[in-house]
Amino acid sequence: MTKLTHLDDKGQARMVDVSAKDVTTRLATAKGRITMNAETLAMISEGRAKKGDVLAAARIAGIMAAKKAHELIPLCHPLLIAGVSVDFTPDTKASAIDVEATVKVEGKTGVEMEALTAVSVACLTIYDMCKSADRAMRIGDIRLVEKSGGKSGHYTGD
Amino acid sequence: MTKLTHLDDKGQARMVDVSAKDVTTRLATAKGRITMNAETLAMISEGRAKKGDVLAAARIAGIMAAKKAHELIPLCHPLLIAGVSVDFTPDTKASAIDVEATVKVEGKTGVEMEALTAVSVACLTIYDMCKSADRAMRIGDIRLVEKSGGKSGHYTGD
Amino acid sequence: MTKLTHLDDKGQARMVDVSAKDVTTRLATAKGRITMNAETLAMISEGRAKKGDVLAAARIAGIMAAKKAHELIPLCHPLLIAGVSVDFTPDTKASAIDVEATVKVEGKTGVEMEALTAVSVACLTIYDMCKSADRAMRIGDIRLVEKSGGKSGHYTGD
Amino acid sequence: MTKLTHLDDKGQARMVDVSAKDVTTRLATAKGRITMNAETLAMISEGRAKKGDVLAAARIAGIMAAKKAHELIPLCHPLLIAGVSVDFTPDTKASAIDVEATVKVEGKTGVEMEALTAVSVACLTIYDMCKSADRAMRIGDIRLVEKSGGKSGHYTGD
Amino acid sequence: MTKLTHLDDKGQARMVDVSAKDVTTRLATAKGRITMNAETLAMISEGRAKKGDVLAAARIAGIMAAKKAHELIPLCHPLLIAGVSVDFTPDTKASAIDVEATVKVEGKTGVEMEALTAVSVACLTIYDMCKSADRAMRIGDIRLVEKSGGKSGHYTGD
Amino acid sequence: MTKLTHLDDKGQARMVDVSAKDVTTRLATAKGRITMNAETLAMISEGRAKKGDVLAAARIAGIMAAKKAHELIPLCHPLLIAGVSVDFTPDTKASAIDVEATVKVEGKTGVEMEALTAVSVACLTIYDMCKSADRAMRIGDIRLVEKSGGKSGHYTGD
Repeated sequence: MTKLTHLDDKGQARMVDVSAKDVTTRLATAKGRITMNAETLAMISEGRAKKGDVLAAARIAGIMAAKKAHELIPLCHPLLIAGVSVDFTPDTKASAIDVEATVKVEGKTGVEMEALTAVSVACLTIYDMCKSADRAMRIGDIRLVEKSGGKSGHYTGD
Repeated sequence: MTKLTHLDDKGQARMVDVSAKDVTTRLATAKGRITMNAETLAMISEGRAKKGDVLAAARIAGIMAAKKAHELIPLCHPLLIAGVSVDFTPDTKASAIDVEATVKVEGKTGVEMEALTAVSVACLTIYDMCKSADRAMRIGDIRLVEKSGGKSGHYTGD
Repeated sequence: MTKLTHLDDKGQARMVDVSAKDVTTRLATAKGRITMNAETLAMISEGRAKKGDVLAAARIAGIMAAKKAHELIPLCHPLLIAGVSVDFTPDTKASAIDVEATVKVEGKTGVEMEALTAVSVACLTIYDMCKSADRAMRIGDIRLVEKSGGKSGHYTGD
Repeated sequence: MTKLTHLDDKGQARMVDVSAKDVTTRLATAKGRITMNAETLAMISEGRAKKGDVLAAARIAGIMAAKKAHELIPLCHPLLIAGVSVDFTPDTKASAIDVEATVKVEGKTGVEMEALTAVSVACLTIYDMCKSADRAMRIGDIRLVEKSGGKSGHYTGD
Repeated sequence: MTKLTHLDDKGQARMVDVSAKDVTTRLATAKGRITMNAETLAMISEGRAKKGDVLAAARIAGIMAAKKAHELIPLCHPLLIAGVSVDFTPDTKASAIDVEATVKVEGKTGVEMEALTAVSVACLTIYDMCKSADRAMRIGDIRLVEKSGGKSGHYTGD
Repeated sequence: MTKLTHLDDKGQARMVDVSAKDVTTRLATAKGRITMNAETLAMISEGRAKKGDVLAAARIAGIMAAKKAHELIPLCHPLLIAGVSVDFTPDTKASAIDVEATVKVEGKTGVEMEALTAVSVACLTIYDMCKSADRAMRIGDIRLVEKSGGKSGHYTGD
């Protein structure tokens, strides 16, 4: 039967011992989106400077958050992240911005949490910077879309 | 016309000066949910010890993250958070756990970002603790549902 | 009956809401000690430069840790600490160093945890700096010795 | 003669250069205890939910603190901690809770400080969560009980 | 005679007690500059996107660093920063970028250190982002240019 | 043509992927200086205890800041720093203190930013501790003076 490895036999939290695992090159990509009203999306997208700064700030925040995943998530292992990119794709039809983060590492554990954290904090930063105009923005669809490296093999989600 | 207050006249990021704002009691409640397969939800919900630890860890992580919102979100003001609660409601029908966080403060700025950050990190922690069993979990519907205090008045979302 | 205020009616952790509490001047003093073999104590105490740096480093570490108490202790409120001092008294007879930290604040909650954290981290720093010479050092007797300000009144311990 | 390796020839603090040391699997176990009055111990031990949350919070806090040891202790090297567990054993006779933390790493330096920090912060968290009922709790007997890996060989304390 | 208030009568470091000081609106402005070769300055200044991202990243880094001043500088008090702005002025003649940061607070201590830290970290970020092209960049002239609020009155430097 | 590797083809910030780079022993030395009036320099230099604590605090702050470089500088990679030293040389003629930091690592990226950050924060700490006596101190000449290890070879500056 499937087990939650973050809990020991008594169901108590622990940081799983990974010392015996191999160091391999690992990659994870996560996605998410923040939905907003059309006027807010236009404010972000139109006007070079403004777009620059809202999304530039969100990108920086997402990258920095990837480095902090192990400080935020109690049982997440610290890692020497080797690379992070955060990309934004405005979707006018859906009145949303799609956020995608990819994290690479050479290490003993995967970087799903780092990628998911980067997406989450990038979305929170967009919310923060636009909330004076639109309190009803909604963050969603945060999920893992690809993971490679490590014993569990290649994973792809939608 | 509506403006993004986090950008100055040249569209550059700044932390808005709130020194002249009144100190009032402010509250914000945010919600979100993490969807998973039925077996994962059962593993979390059944068995006292396990539920205790997965959700207890996520609750602690959410509360601690509320205190870190201003470190994660570039233009978010530091605040002396006066109280935080994080609650979980399993929804068997939707195969999901609903997460709700309420933050209170006496201060010059609202606590939306703190509440939204608490919800986000609580969801990420559940993902982390269950990912060995279910990589396809999805975090969504993160939004502000209530905000009171401050000049902008009472806000309620759905 | 006495209750643990950090747990709600269901026994779940929360950060207690202190928004309605008065802002008063609060002070807390904590003490602790680290016991070591006589040679280690002599190495710290004799020789001006060395003593300077072991205890100077431990003092700085203790002061900085007081500012981090709310990051380390999940339900501890952030505070604008107004003053911290950390003092050391070598006790040759007991082959130990006594550590005392006093923290002051004007705020809504007490600073016991800040003072206890300062003492703990100052002791850990002494351990770290001397462990190459003495692995059997022991940290103990960490307790609150005085607390004033706030509704619960003046407390003194031994 | 024994030297304090954290001080250079002039007695000034430095972070010792470990770049030439071997990467080996290293383990450290530390213990400590927090003494309290009988009623406080009963409140923690009796009642499933409450015990769950006090000790679950302290366990999470201890694990997270192990990851922060190098931020708290000035000359402590950062490490990629591979595993952490924190365990509690109530001792009704002594009216105390014994705390034990074990940390593993594959690295160039030992993990004593990480284990000692985990124990210290777990004890501080128990103090914080119970202090409204019992201000006279006392934290003590924090010491290294086992260390393996690295050039200095296997160490066991009592 | 002038005294260093961060040292007590025995010359030991302490965080000065400011609990009795008045809460006033305080402002500090600091400046600095980073000198580089002409080609590097051109790379930053020419090309909209690149300039946007180098200076946008440095601005965000400076703002976030202002919030961390009390974590970096041992005896610096934590503060609820009310506003931060960071501005850049390229100086083609001097082949340099001038950096200016202004911080505001309503509090018991000044915000010089926050402004100086913002300038320093903004310069370090520019160095980091351009170092693959120019290792000989030089950061200098970091100083306080204005300070108001508080008992010590209005200060202006050059 | 030279490129800024921290920007992708669209000029957007990213943390450069270093997973394919070799692990080598790398060293970086940075220097800087803080200029002050003669009386301030005398206060720091004369009197054993005082000098001890101002420079001891600045040394500790610089060492701890080296460990935080990747948290402060958005695109800086986390590293397992293997050693840090920070040295001060008073220069009575120039009425200044020269600061030098050397950082070592075995890793995939260099440690320039760690050394430059250590120098910057050591200078800021001296400023903070002496600012009650001398607000016009000035921090400057922060630059890389040596770098070895890695593909780019040995670099020396003046």
